[in-house]
Amino acid sequence: MLTMDKVNDAYGVLKGVVRHTDIQKAHTFTRKCQLFFKPENLQKTGSFKVRGAAYKIAKLSETEREKGVIACSAGNHAQGVALAAKKNGIKSIICLPEGAPISKIEATKSYGAEVCLVPGVYDDAYKKALELRDEFGYTFVHPFDDEDVIAGQATVAMEALEDMPDIEAVVVPIGGGGLISGIAYAVKNINPKIKVYGVQSESAPSMLNSIRDGKIETLTSVSTIADGIAVKTPGENTFRLVNEYVDDIVTVSEKEICSAILALIEKQKMIAEGAGAVSVAAAMFDKLPIEGKKVLSVVSGGNIDVTNLSSVLKRGLLNTGRITSITIELMDKPGQLERVVSLISQSGANINDIRHKRAANTQNIYSCNLTIEMETRDFSHGEEIIDKLEKLGIKVLNNNY
Amino acid sequence: MLTMDKVNDAYGVLKGVVRHTDIQKAHTFTRKCQLFFKPENLQKTGSFKVRGAAYKIAKLSETEREKGVIACSAGNHAQGVALAAKKNGIKSIICLPEGAPISKIEATKSYGAEVCLVPGVYDDAYKKALELRDEFGYTFVHPFDDEDVIAGQATVAMEALEDMPDIEAVVVPIGGGGLISGIAYAVKNINPKIKVYGVQSESAPSMLNSIRDGKIETLTSVSTIADGIAVKTPGENTFRLVNEYVDDIVTVSEKEICSAILALIEKQKMIAEGAGAVSVAAAMFDKLPIEGKKVLSVVSGGNIDVTNLSSVLKRGLLNTGRITSITIELMDKPGQLERVVSLISQSGANINDIRHKRAANTQNIYSCNLTIEMETRDFSHGEEIIDKLEKLGIKVLNNNY
Repeated sequence: MLTMDKVNDAYGVLKGVVRHTDIQKAHTFTRKCQLFFKPENLQKTGSFKVRGAAYKIAKLSETEREKGVIACSAGNHAQGVALAAKKNGIKSIICLPEGAPISKIEATKSYGAEVCLVPGVYDDAYKKALELRDEFGYTFVHPFDDEDVIAGQATVAMEALEDMPDIEAVVVPIGGGGLISGIAYAVKNINPKIKVYGVQSESAPSMLNSIRDGKIETLTSVSTIADGIAVKTPGENTFRLVNEYVDDIVTVSEKEICSAILALIEKQKMIAEGAGAVSVAAAMFDKLPIEGKKVLSVVSGGNIDVTNLSSVLKRGLLNTGRITSITIELMDKPGQLERVVSLISQSGANINDIRHKRAANTQNIYSCNLTIEMETRDFSHGEEIIDKLEKLGIKVLNNNY
Repeated sequence: MLTMDKVNDAYGVLKGVVRHTDIQKAHTFTRKCQLFFKPENLQKTGSFKVRGAAYKIAKLSETEREKGVIACSAGNHAQGVALAAKKNGIKSIICLPEGAPISKIEATKSYGAEVCLVPGVYDDAYKKALELRDEFGYTFVHPFDDEDVIAGQATVAMEALEDMPDIEAVVVPIGGGGLISGIAYAVKNINPKIKVYGVQSESAPSMLNSIRDGKIETLTSVSTIADGIAVKTPGENTFRLVNEYVDDIVTVSEKEICSAILALIEKQKMIAEGAGAVSVAAAMFDKLPIEGKKVLSVVSGGNIDVTNLSSVLKRGLLNTGRITSITIELMDKPGQLERVVSLISQSGANINDIRHKRAANTQNIYSCNLTIEMETRDFSHGEEIIDKLEKLGIKVLNNNY
């Protein structure tokens, strides 16, 4: 049973073990509310997950400690378990699907875990972890559906309420539901007037669907930039706790998530991963009844793959009209390109990239396709340029693809 | 004359006007010293520049305030002046060269400045600003060579010494020298035992050259990712102060700057601009005699153009062997590509991009060039794959270009 005694115990145990992350004021993300961030991206291992893992491990018996722990994760949970185990001087094994990103595998190893690569997908790695648990007596550390783990995550709320007792709403990402279960339980027990909202990616709304239908449901597929919350099935404990303590769940689109990551970089000078940014996206894009309130968005993690960060940035720029990409049909003869380029430069846009292709699929065999990517001020600036091109008689085939 | 009275006055005046940025512990950037960051990227406007501008403006007479201020800058100084003027309810005009990035122009406007776009380059904009000053009686706010501005920048050191009086060395980026002049003057007057080191980009070593030769020198060109410190000529005041108070100046390469930006993103979850990262690069790449010491690197700003951030990230990944890009010569017949792709995937690398081009300039007319970009663990992993390809008889034309 999750109790406030357990949450308070976790809060005491984790002091000095995890970082107490300081609340930051948001810089002009929204005019609707007073927005603050709880930056768990600045937590050890780059996410809140180390809290639950460290508390779970702290509660193990001597025999369990001697045998070690096992977990299945390609992400933040793996790093949390690995670090918490290392700090306690116990062995950890992390099962990962073979195709997991190299950076994640290396990070997990660097925190001292033994990595077991399993052929297949996540479910295969999960099965393997349970097999190894049964064979060698390891303790399995579940990423979310475990009351010790949930009590550990609840310490995010304990710190926040200590630092800012007058919060009126807390906004929390939901994957399996471990973080929001802990936060909502603690918040509502301490001050039931504070609203607790959950946010999911619209590409992975497993908890939202389950709560709506009153029973745990499984999604057939989840694919989102917010990979940290791409969970197909909520947990039993977390489903029950979310049902009882969370006021509402909303979703945000992939576009909105990318824009939130970009805004955090530009305005807050802060790196969040997709899952960490959904709570910010929900406030930015006005998904919640928080007008005029003092609102805390939990930025749950910062472990975005740098190899992917570039494309997120680009998508964010496209989504706000700061990059405009157009493909135009042009007669394949001298001077044509010059006309276009000169029009664009006179409009104050800055060309980043041009690709010129003699197209086989256009109606006119003398024409070619030109794809131009340019830096623009906003959407209206991009549209203004398209208008001007069309007035010159140039056919614009598409834009922003 | 710069005096400690003036610095103390600036410290008092700026309290509540600028942010007191909290020192952060660096997460495993170097084992040589205990490294800390003074995150002026988290300062209002995203850089320390607002300090000097705000103090300068606070010292204006009533008549000067009525007329307003003018400055010339495409970057952080513009935003600092604009914000400080707005907060004081006075007019500001910023002259910018016409080709300045749209994002910088928009940011300057957003802080309330009137923007004057001048045809030509920085020097033309500078001349125009002086003309307007003479014509309309505006006060010119110099970006660095002004004792009020320098006293404002010195408050970075006042805060740092208040928060961490046992610092043993401070590492500071140098462009025109305003920041380091203020910091070194304050630090050495308070505790002369603390070392103060300056860092320049090796592509823009104007202060280093000038100090070495004992006279102010001008570089003919400066081009660096650290655009905030791309200054051709040091100031007279700053030259004198650096000469007297700074212990040493070192340089870092473009590669090192990119790696430092990347490390700040991955380890500290923090966005720094090139100029802001040079002080971190100097500590990471062992340029300074700071072994075992308690060292504070000033991260001076975070306003990196997002449109450029992607390429910095990519360069950082290339520089640490985490992306390997190779071009190989392949016989243009079925099955060839499959052999290569299968070898790479069996080696545990992850292909990001493939470009296949029938080359006109190879010896064999039946061959084609294949450029493959892949995610690798480190340099040795990339080399291992190249070795294996060569053992298969495949010609590797070049790598990492």
